[in-house]
Amino acid sequence: MKLNERGLLIVISGPSGVGKGTVRKALFERENHNLKYSVSMTTRKMREGEVEGKDYYFVSKEEFQKRIDEGKFLEHAEFVGNCYGTPLDKVNEQLDKGSEVVLEIEVEGAMQVKKKVPDCVLIFIVPPSKEALYERLKKRGTETEEVIQARIAKANREFKVAKYYDYIVVNDDVDNAADRIMAIIRAEHARTCRSISKYYDLIGESEE
Amino acid sequence: MKLNERGLLIVISGPSGVGKGTVRKALFERENHNLKYSVSMTTRKMREGEVEGKDYYFVSKEEFQKRIDEGKFLEHAEFVGNCYGTPLDKVNEQLDKGSEVVLEIEVEGAMQVKKKVPDCVLIFIVPPSKEALYERLKKRGTETEEVIQARIAKANREFKVAKYYDYIVVNDDVDNAADRIMAIIRAEHARTCRSISKYYDLIGESEE
Repeated sequence: MKLNERGLLIVISGPSGVGKGTVRKALFERENHNLKYSVSMTTRKMREGEVEGKDYYFVSKEEFQKRIDEGKFLEHAEFVGNCYGTPLDKVNEQLDKGSEVVLEIEVEGAMQVKKKVPDCVLIFIVPPSKEALYERLKKRGTETEEVIQARIAKANREFKVAKYYDYIVVNDDVDNAADRIMAIIRAEHARTCRSISKYYDLIGESEE
Repeated sequence: MKLNERGLLIVISGPSGVGKGTVRKALFERENHNLKYSVSMTTRKMREGEVEGKDYYFVSKEEFQKRIDEGKFLEHAEFVGNCYGTPLDKVNEQLDKGSEVVLEIEVEGAMQVKKKVPDCVLIFIVPPSKEALYERLKKRGTETEEVIQARIAKANREFKVAKYYDYIVVNDDVDNAADRIMAIIRAEHARTCRSISKYYDLIGESEE
């Protein structure tokens, strides 16, 4: 299969607590898309309402380490004592089928994906303000004060990598953010570097 | 006024007869946009239904040459014996106001704009097939057979520059093409290189 027939690899990332998961869910509620969500693997505890194989694959630390050793992750990262990773085989399978694969991952993992898959589309979600981000982290209520403080400190460091992303999307309103991401996906398909080979019979193949 | 507060300069171009004008009109029929059409100046004859100052500013060859000499064009080109140009002052005025300015111009002019305004957004419109393009040129019926043949030959040369554009949009259906361009405009506003300065208070200004 030729490279240009593969789907796009879309990376949705951003600081902890910015609402990446909410934006991703709103994105998948859109009609007429060909998006597939790449379910991450994690060693963290299942939260109320989460479903195995839908929100995450929940595995033990031993199982996770075994998969790292076998090179089975596109990216992986440790975060506040828990490990998160993207299973490589499932991503490739969907891209080969022509689906757009959406990863919703931490910034550390996103930088690994950028290195391994340079033509991925990196989207950095930002909150409307720092205050909004702190409020979100506190409201979640599933973490201790210590964990919240660690997340705030991490978020402040994570903002610094925004410049390495292709796009910055503000999560002022979840539907607005999802609409912007849909526009980005549509636009990326029309980018000359991705689409020109489709038109070689029309425009002639470049001599360069 | 800071650069990032300016609107985008959107260049819609492509081979002769591809339907640039139709796509541009469909674009302006969309709701909730901040687009301004940059009316070109031309020395060609007014066609039936065209309006001075809306479709083109119609001027004499002498008047056109005077404006070239005074550096009053962002771009200008001669095409099948007629001159076409984009008045620079009006474009800058609209961009400064924060409007997105849409130019619908020939490929020769588009390459001049790319040189003068490197951060413009260059969109190349392609027909669904060469046959569709030839049919369009013949149906227009306002030109002699000689002019049609000259346009076909020019179109074939013009296809070669597609690779210098940012995006390629196929005019398979006018509304689809307009939708794709709206998505491109929305996505371009979110591109990190254009938008990061808006978030400096959030992410901190880069040291690099």
